[in-house]
Amino acid sequence: MATTHLLTPPRLHHPTLSSPSSAARLRASASLAHPLLHSRLRLAARPSPRPRRRAMSTTVRSSLIDPDGGALVELVAAPDRRAALRAEAEQLPRVRMSLVDLQWAHVLAEGWASPLRGFMREDEYLQSLHFNCIRLPDGGGLVNMSLPIVLAIGDADKEQIGNKPDVALEGPDGGIVAILRRVEVYPHNKEERIARIWGTTAPGLPYVDEAIASAGNWLIGGDLEVLEPIKYNDGLDHYRLSPRQLRNEFDKRGADAVFAFQLRNPVHNGHALLMNDTRRRLLEMGYKNPILLLHPLGGFTKADDVPLPVRMEQHSKVLEDGVLDPETTIVSIFPSPMHYAGPTEVQWHAKARINAGANFYIVGRDPAGMGHPTEKRDLYNPDHGKKVLSMAPGLEKLNILPFKVAAYDTVAKEMAFFDPSRSQDFLFISGTKMRTFAKNGENPPDGFMCPGGWKVLVDYYNSLQAEEAVPAPV
Amino acid sequence: MATTHLLTPPRLHHPTLSSPSSAARLRASASLAHPLLHSRLRLAARPSPRPRRRAMSTTVRSSLIDPDGGALVELVAAPDRRAALRAEAEQLPRVRMSLVDLQWAHVLAEGWASPLRGFMREDEYLQSLHFNCIRLPDGGGLVNMSLPIVLAIGDADKEQIGNKPDVALEGPDGGIVAILRRVEVYPHNKEERIARIWGTTAPGLPYVDEAIASAGNWLIGGDLEVLEPIKYNDGLDHYRLSPRQLRNEFDKRGADAVFAFQLRNPVHNGHALLMNDTRRRLLEMGYKNPILLLHPLGGFTKADDVPLPVRMEQHSKVLEDGVLDPETTIVSIFPSPMHYAGPTEVQWHAKARINAGANFYIVGRDPAGMGHPTEKRDLYNPDHGKKVLSMAPGLEKLNILPFKVAAYDTVAKEMAFFDPSRSQDFLFISGTKMRTFAKNGENPPDGFMCPGGWKVLVDYYNSLQAEEAVPAPV
Repeated sequence: MATTHLLTPPRLHHPTLSSPSSAARLRASASLAHPLLHSRLRLAARPSPRPRRRAMSTTVRSSLIDPDGGALVELVAAPDRRAALRAEAEQLPRVRMSLVDLQWAHVLAEGWASPLRGFMREDEYLQSLHFNCIRLPDGGGLVNMSLPIVLAIGDADKEQIGNKPDVALEGPDGGIVAILRRVEVYPHNKEERIARIWGTTAPGLPYVDEAIASAGNWLIGGDLEVLEPIKYNDGLDHYRLSPRQLRNEFDKRGADAVFAFQLRNPVHNGHALLMNDTRRRLLEMGYKNPILLLHPLGGFTKADDVPLPVRMEQHSKVLEDGVLDPETTIVSIFPSPMHYAGPTEVQWHAKARINAGANFYIVGRDPAGMGHPTEKRDLYNPDHGKKVLSMAPGLEKLNILPFKVAAYDTVAKEMAFFDPSRSQDFLFISGTKMRTFAKNGENPPDGFMCPGGWKVLVDYYNSLQAEEAVPAPV
Repeated sequence: MATTHLLTPPRLHHPTLSSPSSAARLRASASLAHPLLHSRLRLAARPSPRPRRRAMSTTVRSSLIDPDGGALVELVAAPDRRAALRAEAEQLPRVRMSLVDLQWAHVLAEGWASPLRGFMREDEYLQSLHFNCIRLPDGGGLVNMSLPIVLAIGDADKEQIGNKPDVALEGPDGGIVAILRRVEVYPHNKEERIARIWGTTAPGLPYVDEAIASAGNWLIGGDLEVLEPIKYNDGLDHYRLSPRQLRNEFDKRGADAVFAFQLRNPVHNGHALLMNDTRRRLLEMGYKNPILLLHPLGGFTKADDVPLPVRMEQHSKVLEDGVLDPETTIVSIFPSPMHYAGPTEVQWHAKARINAGANFYIVGRDPAGMGHPTEKRDLYNPDHGKKVLSMAPGLEKLNILPFKVAAYDTVAKEMAFFDPSRSQDFLFISGTKMRTFAKNGENPPDGFMCPGGWKVLVDYYNSLQAEEAVPAPV
């Protein structure tokens, strides 16, 4: 079933950078480049006010893969409409969004969820929940949409809104962010939502605890009009390239293939092996200029994940240390919150990258997975993510690149593709194990992660422990 | 979204049989006909050995709607292969099926689940669970498949099978029923299966208690070859027409539209109103000979549902009493077990009827729903069934006929479509209320159900109470 677009990974393990000269070349170029972004990208990522407006009105050029629904749906109002919208919003019923809600508004505003035009109405919600895809109007086929993008409100909000068609949405700080038009309010059956998305209702799912358990009993859908680009003012906004900006950047670089790598963890050499090996395979397939989109998730993550600023610093070291080639890599932040919903969520991760112009998507073991919150096992079968992804309706146009698991080869002393014929030579270093090393100030085996990247993690965990040692204010 | 093939029900209430002359005509014809089946159908339903074999090899003629995948998949071996298959099966590892498993084998054998060729392998299972549909090979599009049709086995079975490709399946009585070929054994994650199918993991779901909770921790998929047609010897086998037999019968009657009505309850005059009104509307649309497939579910149902033999007797009275017209009605048993999985299950109910040749499907309020097992509410939003059904991938070719709810009109003293403008005139008689009436020997309001049908229910509940009054053997 739908296996024709799968590439089987090679069984041989493949050193990350076998040739010293290429490693040296990468290091040399890295030292000249911006820590994270190639210098050309840096310009694109820090738009002056006018060029951004121009970018909004130009056609999206990257033609490697069409956005879902045919056109990128961008929901940020033109600057000359903002004053009128703000005045209009003042007269409307107001709904306060949480930070996670704001992240979803951001996702919608930039077209990551194209063809959605706002928070889901019930028709879209039900299709997402039951089919993981949504039917385009007029026989346009199916687009993938595995996570409901919804906004919950409480009874008081619902009463305040009554039959009014439009609602103003406030950010967590109370400022007006957007107007939601032709709204539809419908029941928020949390149990059903959780069961169908996660395949469990066990207590302790991080996104449920953060964004569903105490949310309101109603969902409000409608067409979103965002007043201005959503910013977080955390020093990382210039890394938050929109799908349009990414597509423009791929064009500027003359990419003939773009392969996306979703991650929410520090990059170790096993990840780098996957990414570099993918590039090698794409070149072997005849592509001349494959570009890697290293695309860390920037929205909500669970408490014991490494925070975004630390991860971004770690990623920058990985490029500085030459583990990845800045010439052919774009590092950017994917603004979505994380569900930890395994096979259901990996589809969203892939679909959003279609909209950003990536036509290849790397998927490894247990994508978007975690341990079961109440049982001693993985929540999802680690193979289901790539299987479900490869069969998902609406993702046929995306090339899925499933990979074997990489592990530390104690003989070659480097990360390598796991070879079951000599399994005793391999060491699996889980995220938990990696964090334990870093917390305890122990070094992982040589070749697990570049030294600069590792130091970022050790410093982070040291700072955590220092914080814990400080007596709490009384 | 996909609403173009919906017919909006008329708002006016419409008496079941307004014209005395037509009512008389129906009663007259009913008295001549077989209690349940029109006499012509009765012949088709009781095949002699040779004609059945011939029927197997003929083309399925009914062209109102194609089976899913293009051809009806029938998995019963030709009679001349049976001896060889039986001898082969004696040499194979054996797996014992429960009665519910046998019902699913029956469903598969006759092609209700076309294009499935046996119990699902993991690829099919995952697609069913995540997408409620399955991709056809070679770009053939999607077919709907909302319930996983799977066979669970235990650790001992798995060990016994080892790497052997084929397995013999025994019925509940130990007799060989089928061979499952090129088997694949994969983990049975019950929690995930339950959560994704029912949208809850609350204890007390009838199908879960019956068929999942104590089932094995593995699923076994493969290609099914059934030795001979599956029979239950309960006096009702002649009502179990296969999709092929139904298609042949529709052809014999010259049907130019077939509308299916799924039910698991006694037929009251509200149901009859829906069915007769559908026929009227189809005639208005220009069809000359619409045939009703009154299609009670015959597999597993929950303990407090009315048992199949009583329902079949009740349905026969409904035709005898002229509430439905035997000339244009076929009553047959749908062999599937019941999941009580609401919007997920109603898709299965509709899809299976495509394979049986029905091109219209009636859907009412809360199809396949029930009360939440642990909370005081409906398990599903009563409107979600018809919404999900109308948007389901793979069901585009089926005409969905959603209906407003019927209730007892205390002014007109008959069942009628509920009119919200005079809601005080209407009385809702739920299944529970109906059972309470029958149990207590009370009569429902005149016009709720035909007297003959009602007497069947009263007699059934009397017999239950008589049974309960008998002291249990010590």
